[in-house]
Amino acid sequence: MELKALFLNCTLKKSPEESNTEGLINLVRAHFDELGVESEVIRPVDYDIPFGVVSEMGEGDQWPEILDKIKAADILIMAMSIWFGVRSSVAQLVIERLDGTYAETNEAGQYPMYNKVGGVVVTGNEDGAHACSETTLFNLTHLGFAIPPNADTYWVGDAGPGPSFLEAMGQDHPYTQKTSTWMAHNVVHLARILKENPIPPEGNTVKGWEHIPHPG
Amino acid sequence: MELKALFLNCTLKKSPEESNTEGLINLVRAHFDELGVESEVIRPVDYDIPFGVVSEMGEGDQWPEILDKIKAADILIMAMSIWFGVRSSVAQLVIERLDGTYAETNEAGQYPMYNKVGGVVVTGNEDGAHACSETTLFNLTHLGFAIPPNADTYWVGDAGPGPSFLEAMGQDHPYTQKTSTWMAHNVVHLARILKENPIPPEGNTVKGWEHIPHPG
Amino acid sequence: MELKALFLNCTLKKSPEESNTEGLINLVRAHFDELGVESEVIRPVDYDIPFGVVSEMGEGDQWPEILDKIKAADILIMAMSIWFGVRSSVAQLVIERLDGTYAETNEAGQYPMYNKVGGVVVTGNEDGAHACSETTLFNLTHLGFAIPPNADTYWVGDAGPGPSFLEAMGQDHPYTQKTSTWMAHNVVHLARILKENPIPPEGNTVKGWEHIPHPG
Amino acid sequence: MELKALFLNCTLKKSPEESNTEGLINLVRAHFDELGVESEVIRPVDYDIPFGVVSEMGEGDQWPEILDKIKAADILIMAMSIWFGVRSSVAQLVIERLDGTYAETNEAGQYPMYNKVGGVVVTGNEDGAHACSETTLFNLTHLGFAIPPNADTYWVGDAGPGPSFLEAMGQDHPYTQKTSTWMAHNVVHLARILKENPIPPEGNTVKGWEHIPHPG
Repeated sequence: MELKALFLNCTLKKSPEESNTEGLINLVRAHFDELGVESEVIRPVDYDIPFGVVSEMGEGDQWPEILDKIKAADILIMAMSIWFGVRSSVAQLVIERLDGTYAETNEAGQYPMYNKVGGVVVTGNEDGAHACSETTLFNLTHLGFAIPPNADTYWVGDAGPGPSFLEAMGQDHPYTQKTSTWMAHNVVHLARILKENPIPPEGNTVKGWEHIPHPG
Repeated sequence: MELKALFLNCTLKKSPEESNTEGLINLVRAHFDELGVESEVIRPVDYDIPFGVVSEMGEGDQWPEILDKIKAADILIMAMSIWFGVRSSVAQLVIERLDGTYAETNEAGQYPMYNKVGGVVVTGNEDGAHACSETTLFNLTHLGFAIPPNADTYWVGDAGPGPSFLEAMGQDHPYTQKTSTWMAHNVVHLARILKENPIPPEGNTVKGWEHIPHPG
Repeated sequence: MELKALFLNCTLKKSPEESNTEGLINLVRAHFDELGVESEVIRPVDYDIPFGVVSEMGEGDQWPEILDKIKAADILIMAMSIWFGVRSSVAQLVIERLDGTYAETNEAGQYPMYNKVGGVVVTGNEDGAHACSETTLFNLTHLGFAIPPNADTYWVGDAGPGPSFLEAMGQDHPYTQKTSTWMAHNVVHLARILKENPIPPEGNTVKGWEHIPHPG
Repeated sequence: MELKALFLNCTLKKSPEESNTEGLINLVRAHFDELGVESEVIRPVDYDIPFGVVSEMGEGDQWPEILDKIKAADILIMAMSIWFGVRSSVAQLVIERLDGTYAETNEAGQYPMYNKVGGVVVTGNEDGAHACSETTLFNLTHLGFAIPPNADTYWVGDAGPGPSFLEAMGQDHPYTQKTSTWMAHNVVHLARILKENPIPPEGNTVKGWEHIPHPG
């Protein structure tokens, strides 16, 4: 069974600058390679994406290109840096634009993200990884993603500012190695399980609930 | 296939006082009944549970009774009230005691909560449901639970203090009806899928990672 | 004593569209008028502000114009909409750019935001106001702002999507009226107290701690 | 001018076990000693405090003893350990019991915590300090406390479980030294300023707003 994974690297940095978050993405991606999962990494900051909460915002809006990639993927990994203890503005912008998907359904009548699996990658020079992961994984469940156990991996340094992932050689950190291994395997396991056994469209389709506005 | 669901009603109120959270639990539970899922509701506050982070704390500690029920369940619904914008102290205490499960594995060598499914029920007279849900669902994924799409349901009133679920007839609120329906169905769907297709013990077992202390 | 207040309306909407957050800002602003405090409202989304964490990002970066206004103000009110349970991407972007102020000091050698007072205004159609306020007020304290009691005001509707502030006539909501009154008065009270009694530069100046990188 | 500070060490550990949080409290306390501020440390877990949201819960409830100490203090430092990325259940229980103070006023008609100053001390073996601080400082503002700049200090290790404050010699960590110094000085500075210049009872008294239930 072929699976596709998409990483959205929500760094603030425009390529080709080095991204710490990309460093940790690479650790996860190596597992996807071993597991035969095709993956792609894109940086939203390289696209022109206006602030908003619908899927199409007119001329010049490049979000639809990213949304097409998300729709084509079985696994979405939201990758981000921590700023001021929470997820980056770019990660928040991406989640806001995903609000537009509530206006659509899949063929079964569910939200279009149903039967996709979500995971999170976080790097920061310190504290805030739990906050980034919990908000993002929860938002993904609202959008329709399923979340396996141990669906996040992160690297942070100890209290206060300091070296970031690349400089600190975060890829050698035992906990980060463990969690990136477990996360990579679990999103693949669950994506395979759901591809063969999709969530039945019973008790979770939009039909009958159209009188309730889309959440945001 | 028979499934069992356990609700932990983490209200601060000792029975037999009426609990708003129990009101919303009942809405979810009615769906479990229709779906042929056996369910039980317990209030941790009715047990003698010392603060701590291991599974057994000696004489008088009644947590092991609750832990046995969790282990016997396929679905765990953490139900809680909001206080000061976040989950109740009783909900936090329960999560802390679950830390003890990291010291065990299931037969496959995974954390013992693997292949169980988690969901969340929240009530409050106002604001804070996202915070309660996101923290709790995320903690459950760390412990080994899988989370389906739309895995939480809540009722809150508008800004500021005011009537709570029972007085406000929260059971008639359209969004709460939708989310309790979707949540109930999705935790059951995913629990059935995982019961027949457990997460393979590949890349997610404790063996080989024992040098890393348990998370907390 | 003359005081100046600046509101940053971190709505996603470009003017001249109506902003719900501006509706609640107006409630607070009316109190500032009564109290003789000069105020200005600007929308960061109307400026060209690149993602980043320094104060000057080169040609076309309009953040320095906003930063000058912040520096000239005694009171900064961060106003924002809730999206997916947390503060808007525009609010997060503003906080990230304020990171650049850690590289400067005031005349006393403290962070340049010392002796300014912060407050928060939040609107959303539902749940998430506590999360927005707590993250933002905390970030402001790190940057150097002081926070008086009851420093936030918000309006949200009950559970799930629904009408927003303007449509719901949020300005008539008793709790929102109370909190906007208290917040407006308290930021002014504390700003006056600190203008006459600045926080002494003892035990809180950068000198001697330059070996520690700036926080982020 | 004499000031009193009270630390509530919301560790889960019953004395006389060593508490990591107490280790960091001692760092802050040393500054209070230098500054001539009398301080006391108590552990709520050593008292019999039922779960609840009012100030008096009847026979055997020892919360009123702690509340008396809070009322007698000019500075309240909430100290806590991180569990599962957020503040300990004991810290949450303390905040919940403080809900009861909304039912009272000071002589000026404000909430009884007005003109007191709050600060936060956090330790954990890893990630979560921002979450603990932001929730707690925000809750304190709602209750009536004022918050100076840089009002929190914490020590956490890098990603994942590992040694805690005492074992890791957290007291030697530069960022923790800086933030404990700044925090200690700033809560004292602001407490002194407010003792001589209390927040005027204008636009922030309960009178006239009694129709709005107490927040929670």
